[in-house]
Amino acid sequence: MRERTCALVVVGNEILSGKVQDSNAYFAARELRKIGVALQRIATIPDDLAVIAEEVAYCSQHFDLVITSGGVGPTHDDMTLEGVAIAFKRKLVRHPELEQLIRQHFRDRSLDAGLKMAEVPEGAILNTGGDIRFPTVQIENVYVLPGIPQLFESKLLALKERFTTDPYFMRAIYTQSSEDAIAEFLNACLKQFPALMLGSYPRIGHSEYRVKLTLESKDSDYLERAFAHLMELLPRDAVVKVE
Amino acid sequence: MRERTCALVVVGNEILSGKVQDSNAYFAARELRKIGVALQRIATIPDDLAVIAEEVAYCSQHFDLVITSGGVGPTHDDMTLEGVAIAFKRKLVRHPELEQLIRQHFRDRSLDAGLKMAEVPEGAILNTGGDIRFPTVQIENVYVLPGIPQLFESKLLALKERFTTDPYFMRAIYTQSSEDAIAEFLNACLKQFPALMLGSYPRIGHSEYRVKLTLESKDSDYLERAFAHLMELLPRDAVVKVE
Repeated sequence: MRERTCALVVVGNEILSGKVQDSNAYFAARELRKIGVALQRIATIPDDLAVIAEEVAYCSQHFDLVITSGGVGPTHDDMTLEGVAIAFKRKLVRHPELEQLIRQHFRDRSLDAGLKMAEVPEGAILNTGGDIRFPTVQIENVYVLPGIPQLFESKLLALKERFTTDPYFMRAIYTQSSEDAIAEFLNACLKQFPALMLGSYPRIGHSEYRVKLTLESKDSDYLERAFAHLMELLPRDAVVKVE
Repeated sequence: MRERTCALVVVGNEILSGKVQDSNAYFAARELRKIGVALQRIATIPDDLAVIAEEVAYCSQHFDLVITSGGVGPTHDDMTLEGVAIAFKRKLVRHPELEQLIRQHFRDRSLDAGLKMAEVPEGAILNTGGDIRFPTVQIENVYVLPGIPQLFESKLLALKERFTTDPYFMRAIYTQSSEDAIAEFLNACLKQFPALMLGSYPRIGHSEYRVKLTLESKDSDYLERAFAHLMELLPRDAVVKVE
């Protein structure tokens, strides 16, 4: 089964300084999971050219896909595309198609600032389609998305089909046991099913359960066998619900 | 004025796979800002020893403080302390004080799993104080906090006093102009006040304003001069509110 890995690079001082709570990472995490993509890194970094370039270069080399969020507007603190250009050692050039779109959009308004958004790394690809007004810039395996949640979300949804790969299957077990009381059963299950993705999530103050266990695999048959095995191992009266 | 930088390392497959929305990063960002600490990186990474070790080593070298969130429980997917040990090339050893605390806490319950939480990198320091039951493990400049929000928050608050440094001062300007219409004024202001932290945050669908500008500095006098200068530059009727 195909594994497709992804990193998300969130650019923005406003998030690091606590002025804004990022919601794009959570949105991307859920949407990517639904289409079988393994999000393996979220890096939230400042509006700083060198840092953007370094992080994008690292992620591009280590993951199949990279999505960036933020830093694509017309002001001084919007520098993601320039950072991506440095990451790939390319020049920033004005893209004629973007220029045309921006000239239409801005008309008499302050065109100089707007045209900054037409400057992309040389060789960039424009992705259209879906419910988006402005194409999504792609350089190699890096997709540059805006930080405003409404725009980020619609652009990611427009790209979903192209990213889709073999799905994950999941089962969940809710228990009233504490984590320490069931740790040995989880270890025993993993010994038998080493490829199982097994998560153990304690929750404080929930009336129904104390620990939620999640079992995942891209192989539904393997998952069901691991699930059955773990259910055998766990004390029967500890389990309050399964999904 | 003292600058103190910080990185936050959030460990957890549950966040990357979209099962859980992390709230610790936003909490930490706000609290650190209040006490003058510059959070400059948030890395959200999987339950993977090598990745944890690499990220912690990187952050420890590049930032004054490192806070980790998550991966400190008794189950197989809790491996932050082992990752930190690898980052610092130290052995994991059982800490006698932690062992005693855990023995008291667990009593007859499954002690083996619990005792996993007493294994810390050699030479680790235990920080007590504040409203916490279990001390916070520190290795060099790295503070290891649990991922459960209630615990993360109380532990961070207990550490706040030790992290506090010179505060940031902030002013905000709300405008009805679009970003492209004011970009040139922001650039002009930065030319005059290059050390100003100036953010420009467009918002879609807000009835009161289109762009919020934030001006920050650790030098309140410098901030006020920059604020006055920018207010001079901006078209008067564009400003709807200042803070």
